[in-house]
Amino acid sequence: MVIVLNSSSTPEQIEKLKQELENFGCSVWPTYGKFQTILGIVGDTGKLDRDYLLSKPFVEKVLSVQEPYKKVNRTFHPENTLINVGQQTIGGNQVAVIAGPCSVESPEQIVSIARQVKSAGAGFLRGGAFKPRSSPYSFQGLQQEGLELLKQAREATGLPVVTEIMSIKQLENHHEDIDIIQIGARNMQNFDLLKAAGQIAKPILLKRGQSATIEELLMAAEYIMAGGNENVILCERGIRTFETYTRNTLDLSAVLAIKRLSHLPVIVDPSHAAGLWWMVEALSKAAVAVGADGLIIEVHQDPGNARCDGQQSIKPDRFAALMKSLREIAHIDNRTL
Amino acid sequence: MVIVLNSSSTPEQIEKLKQELENFGCSVWPTYGKFQTILGIVGDTGKLDRDYLLSKPFVEKVLSVQEPYKKVNRTFHPENTLINVGQQTIGGNQVAVIAGPCSVESPEQIVSIARQVKSAGAGFLRGGAFKPRSSPYSFQGLQQEGLELLKQAREATGLPVVTEIMSIKQLENHHEDIDIIQIGARNMQNFDLLKAAGQIAKPILLKRGQSATIEELLMAAEYIMAGGNENVILCERGIRTFETYTRNTLDLSAVLAIKRLSHLPVIVDPSHAAGLWWMVEALSKAAVAVGADGLIIEVHQDPGNARCDGQQSIKPDRFAALMKSLREIAHIDNRTL
Amino acid sequence: MVIVLNSSSTPEQIEKLKQELENFGCSVWPTYGKFQTILGIVGDTGKLDRDYLLSKPFVEKVLSVQEPYKKVNRTFHPENTLINVGQQTIGGNQVAVIAGPCSVESPEQIVSIARQVKSAGAGFLRGGAFKPRSSPYSFQGLQQEGLELLKQAREATGLPVVTEIMSIKQLENHHEDIDIIQIGARNMQNFDLLKAAGQIAKPILLKRGQSATIEELLMAAEYIMAGGNENVILCERGIRTFETYTRNTLDLSAVLAIKRLSHLPVIVDPSHAAGLWWMVEALSKAAVAVGADGLIIEVHQDPGNARCDGQQSIKPDRFAALMKSLREIAHIDNRTL
Amino acid sequence: MVIVLNSSSTPEQIEKLKQELENFGCSVWPTYGKFQTILGIVGDTGKLDRDYLLSKPFVEKVLSVQEPYKKVNRTFHPENTLINVGQQTIGGNQVAVIAGPCSVESPEQIVSIARQVKSAGAGFLRGGAFKPRSSPYSFQGLQQEGLELLKQAREATGLPVVTEIMSIKQLENHHEDIDIIQIGARNMQNFDLLKAAGQIAKPILLKRGQSATIEELLMAAEYIMAGGNENVILCERGIRTFETYTRNTLDLSAVLAIKRLSHLPVIVDPSHAAGLWWMVEALSKAAVAVGADGLIIEVHQDPGNARCDGQQSIKPDRFAALMKSLREIAHIDNRTL
Repeated sequence: MVIVLNSSSTPEQIEKLKQELENFGCSVWPTYGKFQTILGIVGDTGKLDRDYLLSKPFVEKVLSVQEPYKKVNRTFHPENTLINVGQQTIGGNQVAVIAGPCSVESPEQIVSIARQVKSAGAGFLRGGAFKPRSSPYSFQGLQQEGLELLKQAREATGLPVVTEIMSIKQLENHHEDIDIIQIGARNMQNFDLLKAAGQIAKPILLKRGQSATIEELLMAAEYIMAGGNENVILCERGIRTFETYTRNTLDLSAVLAIKRLSHLPVIVDPSHAAGLWWMVEALSKAAVAVGADGLIIEVHQDPGNARCDGQQSIKPDRFAALMKSLREIAHIDNRTL
Repeated sequence: MVIVLNSSSTPEQIEKLKQELENFGCSVWPTYGKFQTILGIVGDTGKLDRDYLLSKPFVEKVLSVQEPYKKVNRTFHPENTLINVGQQTIGGNQVAVIAGPCSVESPEQIVSIARQVKSAGAGFLRGGAFKPRSSPYSFQGLQQEGLELLKQAREATGLPVVTEIMSIKQLENHHEDIDIIQIGARNMQNFDLLKAAGQIAKPILLKRGQSATIEELLMAAEYIMAGGNENVILCERGIRTFETYTRNTLDLSAVLAIKRLSHLPVIVDPSHAAGLWWMVEALSKAAVAVGADGLIIEVHQDPGNARCDGQQSIKPDRFAALMKSLREIAHIDNRTL
Repeated sequence: MVIVLNSSSTPEQIEKLKQELENFGCSVWPTYGKFQTILGIVGDTGKLDRDYLLSKPFVEKVLSVQEPYKKVNRTFHPENTLINVGQQTIGGNQVAVIAGPCSVESPEQIVSIARQVKSAGAGFLRGGAFKPRSSPYSFQGLQQEGLELLKQAREATGLPVVTEIMSIKQLENHHEDIDIIQIGARNMQNFDLLKAAGQIAKPILLKRGQSATIEELLMAAEYIMAGGNENVILCERGIRTFETYTRNTLDLSAVLAIKRLSHLPVIVDPSHAAGLWWMVEALSKAAVAVGADGLIIEVHQDPGNARCDGQQSIKPDRFAALMKSLREIAHIDNRTL
Repeated sequence: MVIVLNSSSTPEQIEKLKQELENFGCSVWPTYGKFQTILGIVGDTGKLDRDYLLSKPFVEKVLSVQEPYKKVNRTFHPENTLINVGQQTIGGNQVAVIAGPCSVESPEQIVSIARQVKSAGAGFLRGGAFKPRSSPYSFQGLQQEGLELLKQAREATGLPVVTEIMSIKQLENHHEDIDIIQIGARNMQNFDLLKAAGQIAKPILLKRGQSATIEELLMAAEYIMAGGNENVILCERGIRTFETYTRNTLDLSAVLAIKRLSHLPVIVDPSHAAGLWWMVEALSKAAVAVGADGLIIEVHQDPGNARCDGQQSIKPDRFAALMKSLREIAHIDNRTL
């Protein structure tokens, strides 16, 4: 950490601050310039509170040198984390593909889509039971019934199921029924939910909030890992920008940044990022080409009559064709899919 | 609502869609252009699902004409909503000032600040007991003990207390102890929490998410009102932009937009928006000048030793001086403070 | 175009507006709702001025149905535009690769890089002579001397040269020496420069401004085409967002959007988007996978001693290895590179 | 400046870099941590090239401690710069008000508005002759004829005139006719134009680009001042964000930041920021309350028939009423208007 002092700082203030920092177990190396004094701080700077330092009137800036996350940090855990789900692994050489409808609608719908995405090569089934909707008047998902249908689809196909929970109560009641628990973009900084997710043993798929920086996403993952659950899969799903042609702007550079900063696997959701079904295939290819560990794609037999997000879902036959292209791209980097 | 069809649309598809829309109780007025057909839809378009319409391959665009919120909408409720808290009113001719520390730290701290902000003219005491922090390793607030201290400060001064809750459980356990319940920016789209807030009788201070549009903020308020709680106070607290000099960019135009679109009162939080104590006074003046119904300001006796957000807190004497200027600005618009 | 009138509008005002619009050659189809009247307008709406309509007190909103650009619009020109440069074509089945240093530094440097990128398979040489720098104290390029060196490199290798001009005077003086003239992101809305570029016969590489919407980029291209120069190549080079890990956020969805909206070719600049050399290879692969018509990549023999942008340049040997991967990805879509 | 080295850095590399930095006249103070070495650099760090440093493979981050601008910097010029225009001063105790139509349309229009804004107390007349328009098919201003009409209005009222130029040629041909030369938001990083503006003696009103950071705005001003023209007035006119209710988001915090970082005066343009006439009055009040040195406001007698930007113009009588309120707010801070 680097603390920049302004020209009003006195030798006494500097000495006092120095001792305070040393009491935290840090060592302090000052640099004296004409207009500014700079303090280089090394040691366990994670305990220092940036806001506390900034509140001192003679402190001009506090510049972070070390990342604020520990368990998530690749520096202290150089190898990729591999997450086992049933007999599959996410984060290794195999690109994980999660596919299925936005929301579970009926037994026929979910079982039939599950069979189709499985035969096209998907490894996991997605389907929403509890749906976060921007309007209180929109369809909110089949709730518990939706979960039961997901279990039927799992039984019918063997595909592990991925579904979102939105509250601590849902997490407590249902985590045993779900193979990968999704925490959605809107709840990325719902810290009490993150803490609760840290207490359970299931893998968590944590989506990037639409205005979350990469660092904030990693800090949200740190909340889960600090609680004891080390099975966190990160998901880039588009960020909010000034461009409105797409619903959000897919940030594929974030995949590269996250893989450099952290050992956790990262997958991409092109369906929610673009919000436009005709972009999903090309963006999926780009995501595999950039090196993502997996994809989560919305597939629906009849998007024009889907109960939600039909405009961003592709049909099973297009999905099957897409899987072939994705496999070829994965092979170029010696990966499988 | 306006639906733009692309050139691939056939007369049969148009007719079928028209009937479908009429079955929802809407009437449909087509406009036939050379390259496009436009359908003007009037009636109860609130039941129509934009995503569903967009998923049809012959639909090019869906343009909203009516706002998606009802109870929040000024069109159907032209007068300002007045919210009574104890013997005070928010949303009327009196500018409400909520002041106090970021977090409750000790009985002496909170009671003494409460006395000071009261004597300067503040009408409400703020203070955090449950703190949302971006790091799991940062101070998380005194929790329940903090609430007890807030109650002591209320007893000592008579000031109603404003504090944040972060989960349904906290809401259920503590809402009776709090005069105005804050739902923070990070939880603005925690829909389960919003629904729970709709079930209680206390006023809710709902902060705009840092990447929430004005419409999304109003839809979040609609969730609370749809549940039956009509006492919602909105709060502009800065939005995330590319500019990093301030923590967020205070959007004072949003105050004007919200007051035009909705009948709910709207207050401004300059402390969290800027994140810089030396901007708080000038931004507070601007917020009153622009017509906000109130302010929420962080005040601390010793910001350099505050346990959180010291860098954005002002001292009680500056707060007292600020109150004088604010009063003069309020008078220009025939308001009191 | 759709005009939404508010409830204050009178039948007389509506009739008067209707006639005014009809005088512009449009036909007007009204929809009468309970709270609003909606006017559907078809015909030559391009002549209507949105701002003018919005300034009428009884007009609530003006919603655009048709795109404001004509010559750029794929609707009126369904086939892809192919742009010929020497014996090569941009926009067709061959992915164009433009490579070279940020700035021309010396004859040895530029000729040697030109030879290396050519032997790796690049089709065009980039190199800056006039450099837009955010500081007036930074190296501003070798100016005219730089252009001479580019010509030497062209002579030595046969590669057409791509370089930026920043003013009308530079355009007038030097356009004959340049094969593809770049207009940089900062000048995307320098309308006088765009008009001047419309008067010459050389292909223009128009970069998206860092806060330009896709529509604004297409309108900037429309300025050039309206002047008579139809050889415009668009370039996505990252947009400014709240994320600061990368210099800008590469928006690969924009490639898909632009190709749907326009017939012009679109290439991608991963070097400027990320600003980090170690991201360039993966982002280049993603750009080809998403379907871009080409790439512009910064290559330097000794990035650690480059006079500008060294941190985003890759070395010739990495570039050569990258070209192999790109070729394989292009083949998956039956393209060459 | 602080350079953070990664763990791959060797003692030899560090020593070599240290000497290189010392050759630039800087002194280097290292801090050795467990995972990182930090170099504190003081002295004339303005000559160091951040990109150059970042391109070295063993450099992890470069953190700026000092601002990159010199002439603009308040550190080296603590007093406010006062800019004299005729018998008036901008940047002092008097709040400057510039008012007039978006574009000059006719002699009657401009002279009559000039008289009205003068009688309401405005000190300067604005009016566009050369108009930057996003569409090549929109009205581009009366050009030279517009300038002549502005001169007539100046003659009739004595008000100095403020108008935008868009190219070096316009600057060269017309700067003598203009009292304050505006460089618009779209040209804020048209560096050749900035350099040309540095060569003339007239005050420059430099508008913030819609995606320009505060630092970039100050660097653009540095370009002008480095050329020798020290009469620069900065203008906050809204930034591009995700919020689309207003055309841009007015960033009043930027006024405070700029006044702390620089000695140059800063004014606010509420008309272009909001793009909505009914917000202009409240935002103008907020701008004076926050401490801006002036305002630039669009006023038109008949906004419904203005040739551009009618939707953001207020009528002369509202302008006159607004001036009274602004005067009262200015008095609270002991300023005049």
